[in-house]
Amino acid sequence: MNQSQTPDSLESLGEFGLIDRIATRARSANATTLKGIGDDCAVLSVSQGKRKVITTDLLLEGIHFDLTYCPLTHLGYKAVAVNLSDVCAMNARPQQITVSLGVSAKFTLKAIDDLYEGIYAACNAYGVDLVGGDTTSSLTGLTISITAIGEADENKIAYRSGARPNDIVCVSGDLGSAYMGLQLLEREKRVLRQSKTSQPDFGDYKYILQRQLRPEPRTDIVEFLDQIGVVPTSMMDVSDGLSSEMLHICKQSGVGCRIVEEKIPIHEETRRLAAELNINPVVAALNGGEDYELLFSIAQADYEKFQSQVGPPIYAIGYICEASKSTRLITTCSDEAQLRAQGWKAFDGK
Amino acid sequence: MNQSQTPDSLESLGEFGLIDRIATRARSANATTLKGIGDDCAVLSVSQGKRKVITTDLLLEGIHFDLTYCPLTHLGYKAVAVNLSDVCAMNARPQQITVSLGVSAKFTLKAIDDLYEGIYAACNAYGVDLVGGDTTSSLTGLTISITAIGEADENKIAYRSGARPNDIVCVSGDLGSAYMGLQLLEREKRVLRQSKTSQPDFGDYKYILQRQLRPEPRTDIVEFLDQIGVVPTSMMDVSDGLSSEMLHICKQSGVGCRIVEEKIPIHEETRRLAAELNINPVVAALNGGEDYELLFSIAQADYEKFQSQVGPPIYAIGYICEASKSTRLITTCSDEAQLRAQGWKAFDGK
Repeated sequence: MNQSQTPDSLESLGEFGLIDRIATRARSANATTLKGIGDDCAVLSVSQGKRKVITTDLLLEGIHFDLTYCPLTHLGYKAVAVNLSDVCAMNARPQQITVSLGVSAKFTLKAIDDLYEGIYAACNAYGVDLVGGDTTSSLTGLTISITAIGEADENKIAYRSGARPNDIVCVSGDLGSAYMGLQLLEREKRVLRQSKTSQPDFGDYKYILQRQLRPEPRTDIVEFLDQIGVVPTSMMDVSDGLSSEMLHICKQSGVGCRIVEEKIPIHEETRRLAAELNINPVVAALNGGEDYELLFSIAQADYEKFQSQVGPPIYAIGYICEASKSTRLITTCSDEAQLRAQGWKAFDGK
Repeated sequence: MNQSQTPDSLESLGEFGLIDRIATRARSANATTLKGIGDDCAVLSVSQGKRKVITTDLLLEGIHFDLTYCPLTHLGYKAVAVNLSDVCAMNARPQQITVSLGVSAKFTLKAIDDLYEGIYAACNAYGVDLVGGDTTSSLTGLTISITAIGEADENKIAYRSGARPNDIVCVSGDLGSAYMGLQLLEREKRVLRQSKTSQPDFGDYKYILQRQLRPEPRTDIVEFLDQIGVVPTSMMDVSDGLSSEMLHICKQSGVGCRIVEEKIPIHEETRRLAAELNINPVVAALNGGEDYELLFSIAQADYEKFQSQVGPPIYAIGYICEASKSTRLITTCSDEAQLRAQGWKAFDGK
């Protein structure tokens, strides 16, 4: 690698920088490798027009989850759900997972049973088979590594790179709620630290808590798109926030976009807690992440198919334009603001 | 689960007990899932008589590797190699891997580059594509999770469960050398701790060091078996030691075996260091593990095909018998000793 381009540290390089650095060296030696690093899943050819997709996530205690407020059953469910969501983001159907666990001495067998209770609940909910894994002791807390495999027809795979000017940008559900759920959990954790006798007070915030603790992969959207004969021109799932994901799609498709602020679906509970905590709910939607909704672009001609069919709600939030027109948010006062990726960064210690 | 059968702790359950406990609840909801938990890989059907196999390993600093004597480049290579070995153990060809990394602040970018140097070296050596992964910060040391995918013809997959009485038990190379390599590294680490000015003295033990630090998956054996038209009736790779693996094959095949002590291939360096350290080299072969040789059974009629063709050495070390005749080692003094699995245990703190 070119020494002059080498940053000093992982922190300055960042997660996406490290991924780019790794991907630069990737070569494809196998005809079955159709897509490697750089999308929600890798894509492997099988035969007769079928594709397998594969994705993997590594979850570490203290980085990705906090067991003081995340029950192990929910954690198991979520760990599976976020991987299935990546499979959905390729417009594919999840079929198998492997689960590897590193477990330190502080965990009882009951705790591990609880974790698998959640893992199996997610498998059963989405018709996915647990087919393998690895189990080991750990010196430090819980480590969970999950790999998910899915299948799709060759002509239905949706990459990040296919968005074209004039396509409509859609999202499958409200954004910012998982982030506000996390803010609520963090607030109650601080309260509990100050007073050991308190009980957490989650008030009337059931929806946003569930969005944070128990996200659901949108397999129903993949089914619905298939049913109405629509293949998205590009697709991702919203794990880092709408801004970050939209910028990935625009960069990989070589296009720009306009997202219309007032069209972004935001749940009533998200707005209410945001007001209480003095947070702008649109910022939560743009940068919060962990919503695991599907963000996708479709040809204009396909948009009316959504409206003529009964299915899950789908929200049109903007459109794709030429790259020269940049990536912007049209605000409620009709100003334009640049979209910026301020989502979760893996190496900045936040 | 039945409460009366519930052990108190993970430690008393052990790794294989935990795997059994998880596997009991596994159901297959997808027609593409042909084999789940319980072999070296899961097996998925694709089409036209083709199978995909998938395996995964989780490696944690302080448990699976010690960076005081394992250079990161070697670690990267080994982490890939052991997964490719699992693919070979299904008589399949490895094609893709995903690599997930958890990295704590003590690692420099140079360290991560070194690790990937080894990962890519293994990929290039075996024609395997790195197609995805996940990168994250970690609070505690290095975590590596690798998933490997391979392909095989439907009628060539070798499970652990197909060994039949009178089959010949074969191994692809010498055993116990990786274990003796580890003993050498541990000895030098103790010496270095006592005297900071010493340099490690590995003497004339290049082979066993390389067996420990840089194991090679036996893709050449898979190729050779294909070339001579032999499909093993059962196969595993030797990661936990000959005894442990042989017991897995016998249990899953519902058979017994006789292993002939003097037929077990043991390298001259293994014998020499074993003598120096007062260790029985046969015990190292039986219980040491990490050799990553292929252990397999073949029909007697196939054995002559090995001898009539030029290929990698293959060692016949015993035979399969009825389950009622148990699993035994025929010792050099013609006694019979019960085979016992004393390989590496994941949860006993060793």
